[in-house]
Formats: sequence, C-alpha cells, structure tokens
Amino acid sequence: MKKHIALVPGDGIGPDIVAEAVKVLDVVGKKFGHTFTYDTYLAGGCAIDATGKPLSEETLAGCSKSDSVLLGAVGGPKWDKVASDLRPEKALLGLRGGMGLFCNLRPAILYKQLADACPLKNEIVGEGLDIMVVRELTGGIYFGERGRDGDKAYDTMSYTTAEIERIVRKGFEIAQKRKKRLTSVDKANILNSSQLWREIVEHLASEYPDVAVNHLYVDNAAMQLVRNPRQFDVIVTENMFGDILSDEASQITGSIGMLPSASLRGDSFGMYEPIHGSAPDIAGMDIANPIATILSVAMMLRYSFSMESEAAAIEDSVSKVLDAGYRTADIYTESMKKVGTKEMGDLIAQAL
Amino acid sequence: MKKHIALVPGDGIGPDIVAEAVKVLDVVGKKFGHTFTYDTYLAGGCAIDATGKPLSEETLAGCSKSDSVLLGAVGGPKWDKVASDLRPEKALLGLRGGMGLFCNLRPAILYKQLADACPLKNEIVGEGLDIMVVRELTGGIYFGERGRDGDKAYDTMSYTTAEIERIVRKGFEIAQKRKKRLTSVDKANILNSSQLWREIVEHLASEYPDVAVNHLYVDNAAMQLVRNPRQFDVIVTENMFGDILSDEASQITGSIGMLPSASLRGDSFGMYEPIHGSAPDIAGMDIANPIATILSVAMMLRYSFSMESEAAAIEDSVSKVLDAGYRTADIYTESMKKVGTKEMGDLIAQAL
Ligand SMILES: CC(C)[C@H](C(=O)O)[C@@H](O)C(=O)O
Ligand SMILES: CC(C)[C@H](C(=O)O)[C@@H](O)C(=O)O
Repeated sequence: MKKHIALVPGDGIGPDIVAEAVKVLDVVGKKFGHTFTYDTYLAGGCAIDATGKPLSEETLAGCSKSDSVLLGAVGGPKWDKVASDLRPEKALLGLRGGMGLFCNLRPAILYKQLADACPLKNEIVGEGLDIMVVRELTGGIYFGERGRDGDKAYDTMSYTTAEIERIVRKGFEIAQKRKKRLTSVDKANILNSSQLWREIVEHLASEYPDVAVNHLYVDNAAMQLVRNPRQFDVIVTENMFGDILSDEASQITGSIGMLPSASLRGDSFGMYEPIHGSAPDIAGMDIANPIATILSVAMMLRYSFSMESEAAAIEDSVSKVLDAGYRTADIYTESMKKVGTKEMGDLIAQAL
Repeated sequence: MKKHIALVPGDGIGPDIVAEAVKVLDVVGKKFGHTFTYDTYLAGGCAIDATGKPLSEETLAGCSKSDSVLLGAVGGPKWDKVASDLRPEKALLGLRGGMGLFCNLRPAILYKQLADACPLKNEIVGEGLDIMVVRELTGGIYFGERGRDGDKAYDTMSYTTAEIERIVRKGFEIAQKRKKRLTSVDKANILNSSQLWREIVEHLASEYPDVAVNHLYVDNAAMQLVRNPRQFDVIVTENMFGDILSDEASQITGSIGMLPSASLRGDSFGMYEPIHGSAPDIAGMDIANPIATILSVAMMLRYSFSMESEAAAIEDSVSKVLDAGYRTADIYTESMKKVGTKEMGDLIAQAL
C-alpha cells in the first residue's frame, strides 16, 4: 500500500520523537512492502514564531488531504505570554475541530516491565491495567458559546443527540472488540447535557446486547480509577470529563511516557500523537522517550490503514526492547541499560 | 455559649451517624460549659417520601435560622426513578444555594493509623497527606442557565468577578493558616470562566505575599494528585472541578470514611457533613463509621463557633480511639478491635 502521512512535529521534543517514529515506520514499510511518504507542517509555538498563528491554513489543508497525521507535541513556556486565542494549544483544537476528529482514543496500559513506576499499590493493580478511554473531542464546553459579559465570564457545555450518539457508538464498538464492558461517565445528577448523554447510552445499549454497560458520575469515576481501576475496560465520556479522566487514567499506570493516542472521525482518517507534552527543557538533547510516538504509529497502522500485523509488530518490538532492559531516562531504574532517543528508535526498528 | 443546631440526618446511615455526632457534641457541651440545642429536619429521600419534595420550605427556613447545620447523607436507590428535578441530591443544592454557602472545605487527610488502606505506594505518600480542597459551591455549571433546545442540551459554566474573588480570598486565608501554599486549579487554556478565574488569582496574590501560589490545569491536577500529592497544601477551584478533585483527593488518602466537610459563607454560619454517601445497604445496622460525622462536628466547633480547643479535643479523641485499635467494619484490619457505630461513638465521647 501507498500512504501519505502529514508530520506535525510541533515544539520541544516533538521533532526528536517524530523522527524516531518515522524511522520505525520506514522499516515497517520495507518489511511489509508499503510505501510511506511524508510532508512536514508547522503547528503550535513554532508556527506562531513563523507565521504569527498557531495553526495556518496551509497546515490544516495539508493535514486534511493526507491519509493520516502524526503529531509530536505543542507548546512551551516561550509562548506563555501570547494572547489566549493564539496559544500553541489552539493548534490542537483547530486540527481536531477543523478535521472533525470527534473520537479520541486514549489507552491507559500498565507495562509490566515498568510496574515499579506505578504509583498504586500492587494489590490494587493486580495483574495489570488496560483501560481504553473514549473521549468525545469536538463538542461540549471546548467548542460551545463562550464570552465575557460585563464582570461575568461564561462557557457553554452543549451536545446534540447526533454528537452524543456517534461517540457512544464508538464506545460500544470498541468494547465489543475488548472485554465487552462499557462505563459511561457523566454528571447526570446535575447537568442537562449529561442527562441527554445518559438517555442516549441507555437507548443504544439494546443494540449492543453483548456489552455490559454501567454509568458513573464523574466524581465517582475519578475515585474509582484510584480505588479499583481493574473494574474498567472501556470508558466513554464527553470532552472535558475525558480530558481529566484520561490524564488520571494514564497517570495511575505510571507509564505515561509510553502512551499513544488516536483522534478519529469514522472513516479511515486519523491524527495520532503521544499523550505526553513537549518537555521543552530536554528538547534536542537526545534524551526524550520516543516510545509513545512510536506506539502512536502502531495505532495509525491499525486504525487508519487496517494494517493489524504491522501494528502488532511494532508493539512486539517495543515489548522486546523493554524486556531486554533498554530504558530512556524517564523510565530508567537501577540495573537497566540507559539509552537515548535515537538509540531507542534504532533498537525498536531493529527488533521489527 | 448557647448554640442551636439544625440536624438533617437524611437517608440511609444518615440517622445512625448523626446520632453519634450529637452524643459527642453533648459531652463536649458538658465538659466545656456550652449548651447545644437541636431541631431535626427532613431532607433528601425521606423528605420526598413525606412531602413529595427533597427540600421543603420548612427545612430550609429551619436550617437558615439555626446557628449551624449538621447533615448526615442523602439519597439511595429507592429514589433512582424520581424525576431529575426532584432527586434527593437536589436537597444539597437547595441548601447550599438557598443559604449562600459558597465555600466548601474538604480536608483530605491520611490517618497514619489507617495507612494500610491508602491505595498509593508508601514512597509516594511519605510522611502522610494533608490537603485542603477549597471548592466554590454556589456558582459555575451547577447553577448556570441550562436546558434543552430541540435535539440539543446545554449547561452554562458562568462566574462573576465577585463570586471568584470571595472564594479565592478564602483559599488564600486558609493557606495563610497552613503551610502557605495555594494551588489554583482551572482550565484557562480553554475556558473563558477559567481565564477570569486565573486573572483574579494573580491579581489577589499581591495582597497575600506570604502565600506561594501556583496554577494547574484541571487535567494536570488530576494527575498530580496521584503522582505527587505531597506537593499540595491548599487547592482552590471552581464548583465542578472541586467536585471531581476533592473526591479524588479523599480517595488517595484511603481514609474516606473518616473525612468531614464544611460549607461556609463568610459569617459564622455553616453546614457540616461527612463526604461519604448514605450507604443504604447498611442503614440502621449499627455498622456505619460515625467518625467523618464526628469530625464534621469538630469543624463546626472550629469554623462556626470559634471553639478551637473543643474542636481539637474531638480530633484528639478520635486519634486516641484509633491508636487504641478500635475500628468500624469499613476500616477494620486484622488484629484490630471491631466495634459498631454506637460503640465507636461511645468510645470517642469517653475519650474526651
Ligand atoms: C492542551 C489542551 C488544550 C488539551 C485538551 O484539553 O484537550 C490537552 O490537555 C489534551 O488532553 O490533549
Ligand atoms: C450529590 C452531588 C450533587 C454532589 C455534588 O456534585 O456536589 C456531591 O457529589 C458532592 O460533592 O457533594
């Protein structure tokens, strides 16, 4: 197959880690007989510096016409003082909204090789953690009407039936391919938008009789993730709750430098990125962990190109390299072999 | 002193635990020469059963004219099917909003006697946890305009300068009496209301030069509570973020059956309640842990009646009883002495 990928390295360590992911992708291409071609676009702080805006028309158009997008990370203290509408993060919102990427998949997986970094006691984690957070990404309070009105500031959390239905269906479909348990998170005891959300989940449940559904209020979900995370298989929730809970879920695994994400819209197109930030303090120093970005490429192969064996090959390589004791600085523990960004990329590419 | 207290036992274990708190309060009265008198009011599910509404005018009026309110817990599956506007929880919103209790204090303390129940690894918890979450309680998306409009449902998160200023000042004042560190949590990279919030925190900071302030986005705060909770002294945040983060903070202590809360408004009046729920499955069985409610009474003495020694005496008694190995079922571990609700109340009263 031929696939054209838009690379958006972004700021800080973004270029370092995207380079390693491309290295791995090229080896996958050779081994499995695919041709991956690339164009590189600016977004975030580097785009502000070059064009005055975090997301240019050119970047959005280039990404839109590609087969999928690989993003590094955006932002950094350098742009802390720019006006709030021009912040580097606005590039993410612009890409998500502009390309209609309403479905954000955030796996929270505990890598057994990194179990020491897990903040939770062993008896809570047990055999491991493998949670998939399905977050609505183009609606809710992130995109609702907002403003200032005299001494008042406001934001609107708003959802239509169609917006809720399409993301909830994604939740059910993903649960069907996993352990068939779906937890819908809302605040239906307070919010009207959550009441509509819950009605739709209950309505759709009959179409997915093989999936066991339960509902949690968001405050309770935030507790349960710490108290008994093994109860979760797939969590589906609205944009802001998903922002909070997916970060918490990734943190309880202790494997945050390892976690990829996908932003999808229903066809094969998607944007893929590590969940960690741009870590500007270590940019360009060959220290950053490229694994989350490399695993984002695995998600791209799986979700956008239907290359399941290729995706699994990358995931296996990562496992092998961890098993062999190689660690970047962020996941290093005593008696392991410390390697840099590029060496980690090389090792994973070689293990393919 | 003479103080008149409104008791709102509520549902489930509410009456069991409020009875023990009153027992302790009466002993404090005798020992320190105060007279506490009581009136009891219905709220929540029991009020729905009796009056058709979760909160009657009579309850609100009775609470309002008392010197302070002690609430047990409301709700239970029995009322799961009532219309959303008549749910037991609406009694809480009605009391908070109706009495203007804008400042919710939720201490998250790890009791060293209960350290085994903490879900976090020892190296994360270290010497212990003592976080105070200061949650705005009468504004934001809980009280903003909401509705349905065709196939759309919406809720508004809205704050005025005055609403933000008064709660942020509380945060600073409480930090001044503690370790002088204030973390303000918002989502200023997205929300207009959070941008106003952050401006006000930055503006007020100059009036409290002895307090070190930092800002965290809510998603990051949810992570940091798990990753490095010892960084926190006082957290101040808006209503819904406070709902989520205070529950998470209490859960990381593992001491959730022990944690009280206060809802204040700036004068001496306040409403006090345990943070745990109504646990209807064990109601009336003399099993429930009354300590969170007893510690809520300690908060009442401290914050509403300025009886610092009396408050400290209760807290000391609780510590002594735990040191002596007495535990209710929820906090029982091997080789401890298991006691019921009433015996726990008696022990704490005797230890005074
Ligand atoms: C940077 C920020 C706007 C973004 C969000 O809130 O969605 C980030 O936290 C994320 O989760 O991707
Ligand atoms: C019961 C519910 C309405 C309430 C809230 O969301 O405020 C509860 O979660 C709390 O924190 O007291």
